[in-house]
Amino acid sequence: MNRIGITVKPHDKRACQLMCDLHRWLTERQCTVYIDEHLEHCIGCAVVGEWVPLRQMSDQVELLIVLGGDGTLLHAARHFIGSNTPILGINLGRLGFLTDTPIGSMFEVVEEILAGHLKTKHYFSLHAEVWRGEQLLAEGPAMNDVVLERSAHPRMIGFEMAVGDQFVFRMRGDGLILATPAGSTAYALSAGGPIVHPQIQAISVVPVCPHTLSNRPILVPADDVIQLRLVESPLEASVNLDGVELMKLQEGDRLVIRKGESISLVYLPDRHYFEVLRSKLHWAGQLETRQ
Amino acid sequence: MNRIGITVKPHDKRACQLMCDLHRWLTERQCTVYIDEHLEHCIGCAVVGEWVPLRQMSDQVELLIVLGGDGTLLHAARHFIGSNTPILGINLGRLGFLTDTPIGSMFEVVEEILAGHLKTKHYFSLHAEVWRGEQLLAEGPAMNDVVLERSAHPRMIGFEMAVGDQFVFRMRGDGLILATPAGSTAYALSAGGPIVHPQIQAISVVPVCPHTLSNRPILVPADDVIQLRLVESPLEASVNLDGVELMKLQEGDRLVIRKGESISLVYLPDRHYFEVLRSKLHWAGQLETRQ
Amino acid sequence: MNRIGITVKPHDKRACQLMCDLHRWLTERQCTVYIDEHLEHCIGCAVVGEWVPLRQMSDQVELLIVLGGDGTLLHAARHFIGSNTPILGINLGRLGFLTDTPIGSMFEVVEEILAGHLKTKHYFSLHAEVWRGEQLLAEGPAMNDVVLERSAHPRMIGFEMAVGDQFVFRMRGDGLILATPAGSTAYALSAGGPIVHPQIQAISVVPVCPHTLSNRPILVPADDVIQLRLVESPLEASVNLDGVELMKLQEGDRLVIRKGESISLVYLPDRHYFEVLRSKLHWAGQLETRQ
Amino acid sequence: MNRIGITVKPHDKRACQLMCDLHRWLTERQCTVYIDEHLEHCIGCAVVGEWVPLRQMSDQVELLIVLGGDGTLLHAARHFIGSNTPILGINLGRLGFLTDTPIGSMFEVVEEILAGHLKTKHYFSLHAEVWRGEQLLAEGPAMNDVVLERSAHPRMIGFEMAVGDQFVFRMRGDGLILATPAGSTAYALSAGGPIVHPQIQAISVVPVCPHTLSNRPILVPADDVIQLRLVESPLEASVNLDGVELMKLQEGDRLVIRKGESISLVYLPDRHYFEVLRSKLHWAGQLETRQ
Repeated sequence: MNRIGITVKPHDKRACQLMCDLHRWLTERQCTVYIDEHLEHCIGCAVVGEWVPLRQMSDQVELLIVLGGDGTLLHAARHFIGSNTPILGINLGRLGFLTDTPIGSMFEVVEEILAGHLKTKHYFSLHAEVWRGEQLLAEGPAMNDVVLERSAHPRMIGFEMAVGDQFVFRMRGDGLILATPAGSTAYALSAGGPIVHPQIQAISVVPVCPHTLSNRPILVPADDVIQLRLVESPLEASVNLDGVELMKLQEGDRLVIRKGESISLVYLPDRHYFEVLRSKLHWAGQLETRQ
Repeated sequence: MNRIGITVKPHDKRACQLMCDLHRWLTERQCTVYIDEHLEHCIGCAVVGEWVPLRQMSDQVELLIVLGGDGTLLHAARHFIGSNTPILGINLGRLGFLTDTPIGSMFEVVEEILAGHLKTKHYFSLHAEVWRGEQLLAEGPAMNDVVLERSAHPRMIGFEMAVGDQFVFRMRGDGLILATPAGSTAYALSAGGPIVHPQIQAISVVPVCPHTLSNRPILVPADDVIQLRLVESPLEASVNLDGVELMKLQEGDRLVIRKGESISLVYLPDRHYFEVLRSKLHWAGQLETRQ
Repeated sequence: MNRIGITVKPHDKRACQLMCDLHRWLTERQCTVYIDEHLEHCIGCAVVGEWVPLRQMSDQVELLIVLGGDGTLLHAARHFIGSNTPILGINLGRLGFLTDTPIGSMFEVVEEILAGHLKTKHYFSLHAEVWRGEQLLAEGPAMNDVVLERSAHPRMIGFEMAVGDQFVFRMRGDGLILATPAGSTAYALSAGGPIVHPQIQAISVVPVCPHTLSNRPILVPADDVIQLRLVESPLEASVNLDGVELMKLQEGDRLVIRKGESISLVYLPDRHYFEVLRSKLHWAGQLETRQ
Repeated sequence: MNRIGITVKPHDKRACQLMCDLHRWLTERQCTVYIDEHLEHCIGCAVVGEWVPLRQMSDQVELLIVLGGDGTLLHAARHFIGSNTPILGINLGRLGFLTDTPIGSMFEVVEEILAGHLKTKHYFSLHAEVWRGEQLLAEGPAMNDVVLERSAHPRMIGFEMAVGDQFVFRMRGDGLILATPAGSTAYALSAGGPIVHPQIQAISVVPVCPHTLSNRPILVPADDVIQLRLVESPLEASVNLDGVELMKLQEGDRLVIRKGESISLVYLPDRHYFEVLRSKLHWAGQLETRQ
């Protein structure tokens, strides 16, 4: 393994400086380094490398290193869905769920990977399609969540949900979040959804401010196809993928969500999902000595 | 298939009468019928059959028919865990999640099964063990949930949870519910847990009145072993399996929960999980004609 | 009392017809009837009356009769805030919290009122002001709720809240609802807020999808002034009064909410708040004969 | 003012030592000091004072000083309900809602009080009565909450609630919490209730694990009488006042809760309710410089 891609948190001087250090360190070890060409703010650190668009990088590199937080990794990962190229997330601040390598361990961990000691874990994505009658209007992937929501207007929308060929409900409210396990600790958690361990093959369906109080979060098998149909919308509604608007929907439009391809993250045996969770959520706990 | 077991809802005259009808109908078709010997209140209906304890029935019958609601089936199912003998739940009232055959379809469905047209679906159970030091004090199965809770006293208990070899948190509150997907629509739902589709391989961990507001429901992979250690309990705490107390715990006692064996329920292609859910939770919805 | 105003649910034929009946009935009793001039769709029912704008009606009438649901009454009530003119809400469908007179009792109740048997109950409103630096940009009343929320964009907003001269918190999320007791059963309830009896002098502060899980609904004394300052907003945020946008906010803008004047609703001794609540929320309950 | 009572957190050496210091300081200022006679563990600190039972103290002292946390104050306050004798809570650790004077300010604050600069704030209590038919079986006060709950058995209880002469609902679940504003941040908060500012005249009614998902927290005017009737209880149910069991209930028993008398707490102008709240709930927030 000697073709390595790098991307960093945008508009962050420290991240750029660390990228320069990492670039130098990698070239000394005979690696070819490919840098996300959108990092113009990093030009100043004068690295000599291949500048390529992130969207082409997955074909060229054997490993992508992300310097930043979960948001940075999420943004980059969209271009690596289905590629099988592993991604290593180095966190510059507090550990994230996806960026669980602290900056202090960066060189040590990369050295291990270059030496061939690499294990990966997989996170499935969602794939969303918007249909108007027989016409596919837009589609795209999401690593965290697909959200159907009322847009700028303050009035409820109404929609129907089906799972596979089974009708589930008609709901009115602010919207609905469909989240992967990785996304369960993001927007879905704020809206009252459960925390879902990344190994579970399930999609969280979380109502946002539902009109009917019995509309509660539901976990649906990840292999089922979920269909939403917008049946009531005083003005347009929005579909957002990982917090970026895909398009506006009209009444009658259908949103079809299914499990998409996966990304591979570098798996580090001593990084613990629950440790990150405990720290993020300020849960109590010192492990007492157990018998 | 000609050895059929029957059990019915206790203290219910109508259920007994239906059992007599079913018994006659089955014997006319050359079936041997085994009846739960605890149904003494049904003696009056004067069936001539084998009266056997429910706990021995799984070895003798090829199908168990339950006349009653989910509670009746749950009670019977404990004796069929791991047996692979399919169970058919006939509901006398509103459909249940487990008893999804209406009384009006009983003979038709049983006829189909006798004719060899039988498909089953599997529901995993939980197995709970209580340890004091190196000693196993008690153990047992649960189809819905294992609950650790403060007992008669009104003060919080404190406990630590680990999943596999990972420490998760120390929590204080009224207790903790560990539920199977089947149990997710029972006590766990009342305590704020999500609805989990029965095909998902996950255990819901739902805090009851947690002292720390960020203690939220967590979905843990069903293959992970969950350990709870009672670290603070002004008086004794209780462990309940499917709403029946297993034993009282003292400070320091450990509760180990793992996925247990499964039960097989008769699967009826046109019975819909979400339909039962919609009806039970009073969700809105008429399916509009779809394109 | 002989000057009576009427307004009805827009775009509703039955409501118009009932208005005609009521109009005739009132004129037969020597009342002067003033009709909301926006009801052009009712012209067909050919009443001969004074057509006046709703916003001028409170000066001219001694009683306003609303035919419709809570939404219709809410819309009309905005023009009667502080006027002391009582409003009678006649509900055409299921009883509402504000429209608690069924259509079948309309004439009987109005007859009672004309005979001088009138008691009223008061509902306080909220008054909202938007300030940019020293400049008051917009202001207006709300009977149900004042909502600060992210607008069309899918990213969180951040804001600070103070109550009186006390700083409360900085919060990030989708927004914040400030609701009167009347509004506690509307949007605030969907977002997880409590039901607040209309006699309680308190404002519900309900976070919408808060980033921090410990941000919970708070009840603040109605006489306290609440200030919100928008400190983080990737794009514009919105302020909505009773579901109608007042204006867009920029970072640094302040929203000042205080108790406004009241409206008077006709009080009917045998109409029960909790009965409406029980019916709306599908709570169980037949009152058993009590000892 | 020169008759001062003192009580301290039980089983706490530091609290005893501080009591000795405070005792000496007060006697130097010609105060007569009355000490809670239950503090036998403090005998060692050899104070010469009047040892009296806490329950008789309210008649003898002009001020009660509590050294400890909210729990200690709550316990002592039960004996001061209706007495009008002000209570000063000195917190030895993190500030509490009721004990909002830090230990470092103790002498300064007491000096101010002895100098006659004393303002008080009032917290209402609840009074609970248990009736079986025409017989009053037990009664008592609660500063935080009255709780009706299933006792040691794991099965739901069912009960009916009325407010004044209005029937509210029949509910099934683990129980119901009736909390004062002071109690709204205690058990009621864990069960999903709102935070209620102490100046609001309302009782929070918070369901614990309700079977019906639309049973949500309700705020009831503090002057209304609340009646609960236990209609379904497989075994006995419990009534707890501030976390101490009053008695066991049987089916048919009635629990009548009304606003009780108040306690007076010393009011310190620069102690802020929301500051304590923000600290306790780990809310974000540094107050930015405001314009």
